Amino acid sequence: MLESVSPGEKLPSVRTLCQRYSASPVTVQTALSRLARAGLTVAKSGDGTYKANLVEQRISLGQTVDYAWQSVALGSSPLAEESVARDHFTPRPELISLSIGYLDESLQPLERLNRAANRALKRPQIWQRLPPEGSEELRAFFARALGGDFQAQDTLIVSGGQAALSSTFRALVPLGGSIVLESPTYFAAISVARVAGLKTVPVPVDAEGIRPDLLEEALRISGAKVLYLQPQFQNPTGVTLTRSRRVEVLELARKYGVFIIEDDYAHDLRLEGESMPPLILSALERTVYIRSITKITAPGLRIAAILAKGPVLGRLKAMRALDDMFVTGLTQEIALELLSSSSWKGHLKRVQSALKARRDFLILKVREQLPYLKLSSVPQGGFSLWYELPAGTDDLEYVRSAARAGVGISAGSRYFPAEPGGSFVRLTYSGLPEDLLLEGVSRLKGVGYDSGHV
Amino acid sequence: MLESVSPGEKLPSVRTLCQRYSASPVTVQTALSRLARAGLTVAKSGDGTYKANLVEQRISLGQTVDYAWQSVALGSSPLAEESVARDHFTPRPELISLSIGYLDESLQPLERLNRAANRALKRPQIWQRLPPEGSEELRAFFARALGGDFQAQDTLIVSGGQAALSSTFRALVPLGGSIVLESPTYFAAISVARVAGLKTVPVPVDAEGIRPDLLEEALRISGAKVLYLQPQFQNPTGVTLTRSRRVEVLELARKYGVFIIEDDYAHDLRLEGESMPPLILSALERTVYIRSITKITAPGLRIAAILAKGPVLGRLKAMRALDDMFVTGLTQEIALELLSSSSWKGHLKRVQSALKARRDFLILKVREQLPYLKLSSVPQGGFSLWYELPAGTDDLEYVRSAARAGVGISAGSRYFPAEPGGSFVRLTYSGLPEDLLLEGVSRLKGVGYDSGHV
Repeated sequence: MLESVSPGEKLPSVRTLCQRYSASPVTVQTALSRLARAGLTVAKSGDGTYKANLVEQRISLGQTVDYAWQSVALGSSPLAEESVARDHFTPRPELISLSIGYLDESLQPLERLNRAANRALKRPQIWQRLPPEGSEELRAFFARALGGDFQAQDTLIVSGGQAALSSTFRALVPLGGSIVLESPTYFAAISVARVAGLKTVPVPVDAEGIRPDLLEEALRISGAKVLYLQPQFQNPTGVTLTRSRRVEVLELARKYGVFIIEDDYAHDLRLEGESMPPLILSALERTVYIRSITKITAPGLRIAAILAKGPVLGRLKAMRALDDMFVTGLTQEIALELLSSSSWKGHLKRVQSALKARRDFLILKVREQLPYLKLSSVPQGGFSLWYELPAGTDDLEYVRSAARAGVGISAGSRYFPAEPGGSFVRLTYSGLPEDLLLEGVSRLKGVGYDSGHV
Repeated sequence: MLESVSPGEKLPSVRTLCQRYSASPVTVQTALSRLARAGLTVAKSGDGTYKANLVEQRISLGQTVDYAWQSVALGSSPLAEESVARDHFTPRPELISLSIGYLDESLQPLERLNRAANRALKRPQIWQRLPPEGSEELRAFFARALGGDFQAQDTLIVSGGQAALSSTFRALVPLGGSIVLESPTYFAAISVARVAGLKTVPVPVDAEGIRPDLLEEALRISGAKVLYLQPQFQNPTGVTLTRSRRVEVLELARKYGVFIIEDDYAHDLRLEGESMPPLILSALERTVYIRSITKITAPGLRIAAILAKGPVLGRLKAMRALDDMFVTGLTQEIALELLSSSSWKGHLKRVQSALKARRDFLILKVREQLPYLKLSSVPQGGFSLWYELPAGTDDLEYVRSAARAGVGISAGSRYFPAEPGGSFVRLTYSGLPEDLLLEGVSRLKGVGYDSGHV
């Protein structure tokens, strides 16, 4: 009976309504009180019933909306902790951030990106539908770049490395199943696994990469069928899995029937030394390979590729279609234009040599000015350094103290799926030019380094 | 011992290796056979051991890679069915498709999109990092458009409606929990829920929308705390939830402490009649509102907004950060430029009047040429018509038969979370101009319509 009445207007009298709907007064009254209970009408005393203008009503009556019931409906969840944790890591422009995982603007190929975008916009089908697996040409590009006998058909394009992890973990690990993670590892990989309800099985990393003896034990006792690895410049430690460890890891993966998710997040960030072929080329039948191009371009170019063979690829494709339908064609074309342009190699070299200089500079300045920080190893690539704090120093306290001194750094404990194997901080050198790296280190000089001083 | 040997090269003899590593022959032999088992070396009879070039080796020896083990590691999963089902729906250009859920190119604002892109590319921060919730300006746009007291801070930008559903379902429903779906409903919503391991609770839709009597029963017996609804031009039926049903649904949601996910996927596709305010404006405290702009622009502009208030928003934000980090700034800026351009209203009117003409044309031609198809109701908006097949006709058979006649249509059973309440097909009018709609209908004339004929 509200259909013909505008918000704020008076409803007809009960008698009129009875006549109009050929209904008894009891029926009409019941209907009216139901409308009132649902807040859709307002009774004005001695003046009948008015249709509510709901939003206005709430605001004008100063009614407080009660969200408390949401906590009951939502229940507790690992997502609640994520939701709180993220608030701590809101960007704070007043800080010099030694925790940026991207290139700063001076190293980003901004002009090349805009030129690539202008060329991409001239392609006729740029706004049309694409299959969930992505643009044929871009897929072929990533397949050729990987080598082996990989083809476009073995490749999916996704909107960045984070999306790749989220879809891959959920596609490969059965609901409630287990996933083996390096300890420490990329913190958002831990979060993805937890939020998806997976059991995380940590296996320590040493200077040569993940420890095979403990990996075997972990696979044996957990029954996990998925192992997530960053074999090159592991984030946060910077460690690269050695050749002999690779042999052992592949052997264990075969023995226990395990998938390897090979996250080659810093594929283009090798600063020195000879690169080793990705694991997938030695284990086609069990590896899901992820390569992102965001780290070598700009944070806003959110493109990554997933390569795999066998039934697992079908599952990944179905998951991507449900998670995101497909990635905007424009972004895919921009990536293709950029990666296949003649000036791309020049960009790579420029970034790599700049990052190498920054890495060496940061190591030097930390050694000079913060001698109590112990570098775990000099990484041959990537964008960060992993420092151990003196025994007894609480990493979270140290990070808070650094923030008060005007420097943003990442606390090591975030990177451990279980108890941290020590007290660490991660400092990145990719996001700032050398003068600001120096300023950051200088500000840290005032920060106490044991639990007594901070 | 493989470090110093190139792929394809011969390894030193056992004696040499014993001397080099000061190891016993047993140790060296054990190491060698481990390398061989891992496929990293190849023994050539009478000629010692060679380091394998793994990829070449596999190809040159014609070795077949065995993927069978993957089935065991992956186990069975709803994703496996998705993976198979998707193959049936690969685009087939030889068909006239009456199952396209997008505008065809003649109605897409292609020039406007390119102009918007060119303007967006001039913005200085276009390639930089954004918070997971998206660009402040675009969020403010969607908040203003919704009305009430919604602000940018209540809004998240995501990469399209599908991404919105995937993240929202997983953020709101606890692992293994239940979600109430309309029956029938958007098929990919059913898939998202199943693949996430959620229990789907179907509640039938009639000509006025979801049935409140059955909704109450479903909420009572399932304990579900989340209800997914398309209150306007429900896909596939085209039904709009009536005002009085809205009152009843909101009342039940309050009574049972339930979140409503309001999927306003066709917000801009009202072809006639007066629009009703979204449910969220009457239930701020319990509604997660999703508005996509893909349907009114082009398939490649993958942008949607999620609006909500209270703790649930924090969970959604955390889930989006883990699922996708953030949406490429360029796409967000293009959307903002387009939606706030002075010519936007003209585009809306043009599309709406063209779609209305197409809808009426398709209804007329089906009535003339396929009188056995019974239209459930004339939708006031959206992009599709929902037809009931004569009793005894199998919808899947009919669809296969249509494909043989050169027409692509969607089988009704895909849209039901449980047993279909009849045999239906969905025909869309958004994706083709009238001459092709006519050709599609004409081709269907030859298709038999009961189980005996098809």
